[in-house]
Amino acid sequence: MVIYVKNEYCVAVVGATGLVGQEMIRAIHKLGFPFSSIKALASKKSAGKILTVDNQNYLVEELTEDSFNDVDIAFFSAGSLVSRTFVPFALQANCKVIDNTSFFRMDKDIPLICMGVNEEEIPNNKGIIANPNCSTIQMMIALKPLHERYHIKRIIVSTYQAVSGAGFGALDELHQEINNASYEAKVLPSIKGKKHFPIAYNVLAQIDEFDHQSGYSFEELKMVNETHKILDPTIDVIATCVRVPVSRGHSESVTIECEEEIDTNEVKEILKNSPYVVLQDDTQEQLFPQPLNLDGENLVYVGRIRQGLVDKKMLSCFIVADNLVVGAAGNAVQIGLRMHQEGLL
Amino acid sequence: MVIYVKNEYCVAVVGATGLVGQEMIRAIHKLGFPFSSIKALASKKSAGKILTVDNQNYLVEELTEDSFNDVDIAFFSAGSLVSRTFVPFALQANCKVIDNTSFFRMDKDIPLICMGVNEEEIPNNKGIIANPNCSTIQMMIALKPLHERYHIKRIIVSTYQAVSGAGFGALDELHQEINNASYEAKVLPSIKGKKHFPIAYNVLAQIDEFDHQSGYSFEELKMVNETHKILDPTIDVIATCVRVPVSRGHSESVTIECEEEIDTNEVKEILKNSPYVVLQDDTQEQLFPQPLNLDGENLVYVGRIRQGLVDKKMLSCFIVADNLVVGAAGNAVQIGLRMHQEGLL
Repeated sequence: MVIYVKNEYCVAVVGATGLVGQEMIRAIHKLGFPFSSIKALASKKSAGKILTVDNQNYLVEELTEDSFNDVDIAFFSAGSLVSRTFVPFALQANCKVIDNTSFFRMDKDIPLICMGVNEEEIPNNKGIIANPNCSTIQMMIALKPLHERYHIKRIIVSTYQAVSGAGFGALDELHQEINNASYEAKVLPSIKGKKHFPIAYNVLAQIDEFDHQSGYSFEELKMVNETHKILDPTIDVIATCVRVPVSRGHSESVTIECEEEIDTNEVKEILKNSPYVVLQDDTQEQLFPQPLNLDGENLVYVGRIRQGLVDKKMLSCFIVADNLVVGAAGNAVQIGLRMHQEGLL
Repeated sequence: MVIYVKNEYCVAVVGATGLVGQEMIRAIHKLGFPFSSIKALASKKSAGKILTVDNQNYLVEELTEDSFNDVDIAFFSAGSLVSRTFVPFALQANCKVIDNTSFFRMDKDIPLICMGVNEEEIPNNKGIIANPNCSTIQMMIALKPLHERYHIKRIIVSTYQAVSGAGFGALDELHQEINNASYEAKVLPSIKGKKHFPIAYNVLAQIDEFDHQSGYSFEELKMVNETHKILDPTIDVIATCVRVPVSRGHSESVTIECEEEIDTNEVKEILKNSPYVVLQDDTQEQLFPQPLNLDGENLVYVGRIRQGLVDKKMLSCFIVADNLVVGAAGNAVQIGLRMHQEGLL
């Protein structure tokens, strides 16, 4: 049974001028989301400008309390503060919200959806669905089928996160640093921080701010908490999040400890059969995922699959995905598409 | 009791024109190794050239069977094949060898020495001492005092390794790739490999060649096997070695599982008291080790110290050191210095 209540929707993208916002517009087209119009919303500063995405022009409008009166579904990606302030106006206007910020993610009444992992929870929404953090999404997609088979007890993950995850300003900073030795960092590791450090020819073991009590960064805690909400609250997640001088594509070195002994051939078969995963694993051919090889596809690339040398219940792998597509826009728009298909819009 | 048999030695550096070779010459001066002369040995191709290190000139001589006749101690860093061929001639000439290649490392009759970790094994040498792999050394130095206190059962390490670890050619390749979009990779990930991939704006989950049977790279297996030989054969080591577009300074995200519950304040105290370690751990001040901040010192920088959120026997940290100094030349020359101090030269 396929229910399509409406065939075309008025869509809003909040934070349309940002890196993720532009990918949202791209994904709406690419994934065939049935829209009648796309409203590009941004701050007053950008209002009136023409935003061009894939040769199509959008007049940027200022985000206001009244922006959602004629909107069916809004994709928010303009920071937690904007979501906190403006999502209530969207809901009042009976506009569904897919929120890409961390603001609603851990609210127990709001589904946190990773397509291919827990999409069955989409119908439990009361108007808002939260999109997980980019580094969580790709890990969930790769590990879900392995968890089903081997029951994961612990995940130890170290990330190699692209600069684009911190937005246009950070990406510009990387290029400035490479081209201009006297440039002084002012964005990374966190725009909110007191101190800024160069990312060119460097790695920064800080993403987002720190929770001083535990010593973990909030990015690391997001990976812990979101894994619990999306996949399984019993998994012990130990995350180290590190920014590297890569423009686009997050990489993750992941080691899992399972209840069951692992068969790496079976692991490869399971991943090969996942519609969300591309297996790139062939040491003879030097085939393993690389962020530079990403092609803008909404897929998660997995390779370097190998078992623990001592403990056969340990498995390591290397997971790479486009942080702006898989980690943000692609998942968000797919959620919207599924809502449409299930008559939830 | 201090025994100095000789006050000045004739020193040879094999592979003197390489990145590590030059650091060897620098370390011999900096660490006060008592030399009368430094013989800069290299391949025929470089013979006759003038090598300048820190404003001092060295006439490069061709490495031959007779190169060691007047040499007391030779530091080898010109690849496994060169060590295999020429170390026997050095030994015949009664010249002591500190070998920086992997060729002798796992030979049970040859001490594999990491200063500050197992230097008590230096006297067991029969003319050759092996210098561990760069990524192993810094991890051993940071973990040794923690192993003594908490008894490490498992190490899970993901590396962020600098391009200089693969020599001048790789470093030049990184700069070419950044400055010239049409440049085609021909060095990394491994000069011996069939395929080469760009490192600029990329990460490469391959260092050295692969062991196809296990799926691990030889760099990863080195970290496993050398940890067993240097620190403790009972520790289960799971390593993922990744090259990042950093010129100099290897970083390591390390999580250890211990027999004992961990007290992070005590961990910080232990590391602060280690003469080989600099503790850089203060989330309030955004203080954590960065490869770009290294100053050529022969020290290991440790930060991001935090306990497992669930399992209090788990500890994570971030370890950064100069791969050419700590990971190669500094350790090698310190071994030589200790041999001198103990009358073993």
